[in-house]
Amino acid sequence: MSKGTQTKQCIIAEALRQAGRIGLEGLSIGKLAKDVGLSKSGLFGHFGSKEELQLEVLKFGSSWFNEEVVLPAIKEPKGLPRLRAFFQNWLDWAESKEREGGCLFVSSSTEYDDRPGAVRDLLVALIKDWVKTLATAASLAIEEGHLRNDIDPEQIGFAMQAYMLEHTIRSRLLEDGRARSQATLAFENLVLSSRNPV
Amino acid sequence: MSKGTQTKQCIIAEALRQAGRIGLEGLSIGKLAKDVGLSKSGLFGHFGSKEELQLEVLKFGSSWFNEEVVLPAIKEPKGLPRLRAFFQNWLDWAESKEREGGCLFVSSSTEYDDRPGAVRDLLVALIKDWVKTLATAASLAIEEGHLRNDIDPEQIGFAMQAYMLEHTIRSRLLEDGRARSQATLAFENLVLSSRNPV
Repeated sequence: MSKGTQTKQCIIAEALRQAGRIGLEGLSIGKLAKDVGLSKSGLFGHFGSKEELQLEVLKFGSSWFNEEVVLPAIKEPKGLPRLRAFFQNWLDWAESKEREGGCLFVSSSTEYDDRPGAVRDLLVALIKDWVKTLATAASLAIEEGHLRNDIDPEQIGFAMQAYMLEHTIRSRLLEDGRARSQATLAFENLVLSSRNPV
Repeated sequence: MSKGTQTKQCIIAEALRQAGRIGLEGLSIGKLAKDVGLSKSGLFGHFGSKEELQLEVLKFGSSWFNEEVVLPAIKEPKGLPRLRAFFQNWLDWAESKEREGGCLFVSSSTEYDDRPGAVRDLLVALIKDWVKTLATAASLAIEEGHLRNDIDPEQIGFAMQAYMLEHTIRSRLLEDGRARSQATLAFENLVLSSRNPV
């Protein structure tokens, strides 16, 4: 990795860290430059604009998310084990001390719903991809006979993502220690009510 | 209503409108003053600080929420009719054209999870109150025999609020026209799996 690439990666990682706390829109090029020991123009040498930096942060966040949440889940057997892994890996991701600001995609979701532009477009594409990933995992659980045939896999994805969002509010805003157990129970109740009767 | 009170109400209403789109933190005293036809110092005459304005916006938003969501639901019969009214009134509230920026409490929830201070404290108190309201409505549905005795009312509240949040992301960010029907189906599935077997 060249020195330039290394510096760029370091800026993106720091920006990602800060964006979790203050939002992508709240990122300040001046503060960021200071925090990584560069001049403002030095930082602009790596990114032509704040928007370009925001896009890079989203892309970097997405790769990290894939590594920590998606890929390990896909290694699990198709069906319920994989569906459960998606859910639990996401909770691990959201609770990780490495991301003191929580999940970037959750905080950006309400930040960008009224802000048209390239950042919103990329965010929407990434979240649609994740929504599709969950629905596909649910479809496979139906195919494997782990969930009933009359279950709509998109509804499973809807509820799973809903519990993840609620976990964020309960744990991060309300600081409720039961957030993870409540989210897990909500997911298991969803599974139970979507299974074939024994 | 005195002229001073009227002006103050007008500022709060405009601030609420803007906060839905750009967040409470994004409010700019300068822009707001211009939009309501006051000087910056004229606006500061009504609110000692930006924080005071933010607190007033939250309080005003909360009264409005009570009027549109909570009070009409409480008029419904105890049990499932009331629980369902809470859910549907909330969807109406979130989708109303009067609030082009969506629900202030949803956007503020991720905005303030990492911002300690008086605004966060008030927001947490308001959301905890809402969480308790939902759990109480679920408890009454158990007492009325509409939901099973072994159901945890707090889990019902958790799932209901989760579906509301997911509705926001799907409708506002992903612009998915199925958001309301998916949220409603998620709620009805929750009820169905929590009822006494017929």
